[in-house]
Amino acid sequence: MLLPLHTVCLRSQTTCRRSFASALLKLSRHRDNANVSHFSHSAGLSAQTCKTLLYRKHGDPSQTIQLEDVDLPPIGAKDVLVKMLAAPINPSDINMIQGTYAILPDLPAVGGNEGVAQVVEVGSLVNSLKTGDWVIPKDAGLGTWRTEAVLAENDVISLPNDIPLLSAATLGVNPCTAFRMLFDFEDLKPGDTVIQNAANSGVGQAVIQIAAARRINTINVIRDRPEFPQLSDRLKAIGATHVIKEETLRRPEIKELFKTCPKPKLALNGVGGKSATELLRHLQVGGSMVTYGGMAKQPVTVPVSALIFKDVKVRGFWVTQWKRDHSNDERVFRAMLDELCSLIQQGKLTAPACTEVGLQDYSKALDAAMQPFTSAKQVLIM
Amino acid sequence: MLLPLHTVCLRSQTTCRRSFASALLKLSRHRDNANVSHFSHSAGLSAQTCKTLLYRKHGDPSQTIQLEDVDLPPIGAKDVLVKMLAAPINPSDINMIQGTYAILPDLPAVGGNEGVAQVVEVGSLVNSLKTGDWVIPKDAGLGTWRTEAVLAENDVISLPNDIPLLSAATLGVNPCTAFRMLFDFEDLKPGDTVIQNAANSGVGQAVIQIAAARRINTINVIRDRPEFPQLSDRLKAIGATHVIKEETLRRPEIKELFKTCPKPKLALNGVGGKSATELLRHLQVGGSMVTYGGMAKQPVTVPVSALIFKDVKVRGFWVTQWKRDHSNDERVFRAMLDELCSLIQQGKLTAPACTEVGLQDYSKALDAAMQPFTSAKQVLIM
Repeated sequence: MLLPLHTVCLRSQTTCRRSFASALLKLSRHRDNANVSHFSHSAGLSAQTCKTLLYRKHGDPSQTIQLEDVDLPPIGAKDVLVKMLAAPINPSDINMIQGTYAILPDLPAVGGNEGVAQVVEVGSLVNSLKTGDWVIPKDAGLGTWRTEAVLAENDVISLPNDIPLLSAATLGVNPCTAFRMLFDFEDLKPGDTVIQNAANSGVGQAVIQIAAARRINTINVIRDRPEFPQLSDRLKAIGATHVIKEETLRRPEIKELFKTCPKPKLALNGVGGKSATELLRHLQVGGSMVTYGGMAKQPVTVPVSALIFKDVKVRGFWVTQWKRDHSNDERVFRAMLDELCSLIQQGKLTAPACTEVGLQDYSKALDAAMQPFTSAKQVLIM
Repeated sequence: MLLPLHTVCLRSQTTCRRSFASALLKLSRHRDNANVSHFSHSAGLSAQTCKTLLYRKHGDPSQTIQLEDVDLPPIGAKDVLVKMLAAPINPSDINMIQGTYAILPDLPAVGGNEGVAQVVEVGSLVNSLKTGDWVIPKDAGLGTWRTEAVLAENDVISLPNDIPLLSAATLGVNPCTAFRMLFDFEDLKPGDTVIQNAANSGVGQAVIQIAAARRINTINVIRDRPEFPQLSDRLKAIGATHVIKEETLRRPEIKELFKTCPKPKLALNGVGGKSATELLRHLQVGGSMVTYGGMAKQPVTVPVSALIFKDVKVRGFWVTQWKRDHSNDERVFRAMLDELCSLIQQGKLTAPACTEVGLQDYSKALDAAMQPFTSAKQVLIM
């Protein structure tokens, strides 16, 4: 069934900015007018329709997402036709479908905000991309869970296509979040320490590896679980300095740990609630805690004395906003991707544990992505 | 009774810095040696002893503070002899005596961290001060509740002596706190808005006046009380744009208020708990909340979404630390005092409501300073 989908427009609930209001999902606008060919401006188009994971209302993802065929629009002079290769299921994708995320697309919408695609065809005025290039979205809201898309040249940025597919598919959100949090809040030098909870998350694993490459110590806090020793070993194998259980933060033995590395300048919080308060307690005077997630669904509670007498700085980070804030200066985005891809090429930054799932098996993948203690990121393969 | 008091040394509980470890309270170190004259290096000393409000243990201020005579030490070549004129009782003074403050002097100690003194005599190598000058402490811990003191030239900074005594006595803590919080965290321009709770506090009143002088709007939140209309009128008379009750922050009518001024870039929090969370809710995207007090004795609770999606910055401010951080660059401290004194001379910055109390009536003043809803600051007159 072909759908009369209109331009997807992200409706920001927290800001008045609508920088992403223009066409992201260039689907058929003129289906009611049967005389208009969708492909009249395009020669040699290799696909007239694509398969998409679409939702028409907010709700439980596995109930509301459906695999549907939609028209592909014509390729404009500054557009590219891409074939999606792989796209992960991130927590923010789930929250967007549930309708609980800070930005929501108009409905119906295609799921997915991240992924890697290959350029199949370029418009006549495109000069930064060529056929065969790998690209990732510059911004959220692209609707990456589909087989093909016509995109504006300016909405994507290229990657080297000699890195592992899963690394490319998961590069734009978690490693970028980790990179910016590590370097935009405190001036970290080799030998300094970062403490983080949710250390086994996609962001957490990227933090461990990027920090290790810069010789920065990481204290990695995870919830207790039966396979704690194995997980600890795995995180140490990718560069973690210390891996501790959440309850250790409250115990005297934590003092032993600080004999081996200085107190952290930076705490990274993906959990909130008590876990965040415990991280704060171990921060250096004048250090920063940066919150990027709230897995515990509880607010961050900060003792007044920590603010006044320890001068701790409590901040937040959202990679989507960072990308928008830097949308007019691609150099800084490019420099970050170059450094991350270089780490990948050197084997110093690997994708988190992933489970590859065919697009048609999306329902299973969505259910798996929503389980607690997920040990692998679900990645849709197109 | 003369006391063999040793150097007062502030013992920081939160940092390793001991920048204030040298002699602040230069009292007799050699009383056991009757052959040593305390005044052997000084000619024309006008007082050999002074009266002090001293405490020998931590506890309830009105129980532990006593009026006692102590020896004055000799005036060294880089010292000045000062006569204290007036010194307020601030909440931090009370907490220091109770033993609950972040920095505590070794005991016995003289109470008081703020106040104005007049130079009575100068050492032979003193060049920045002369007899008759008014001075205030550069740092906390000076022990200002006493009649005379011998101080290092470098421990004090001069003020014009044509400003009201109570303004001078209360200048170093509250107005300096207000000034730095207004200008060191957000780039405020005329027409911008600041929201604050505890708006009737010493800091709160200084914020209102300094902001008004720069044509910055203030939304001033106070707890409900029988004399709310009178207090609101008084705060408006000194420049408050809006004065509202705490519960108004949670009511729809707050929206009307934001039709008359933009949402705040800056929130100043002297309370903590729910009051702080309510301030946060009204902050602009990307704005800062700065905490300088915790009257409610509850932590600051920050929704994760405010950190991530509204990019609010949660910070703290402590004027004592600011002064220490800037102790090697007096120009910035001098520039602030010059601007504040200029506002005082223009009648744009007045002292908060004060009750003047003779030093001998200290017990009454301490009790009054510890009452809730105190409407006037207790100031000891020497």
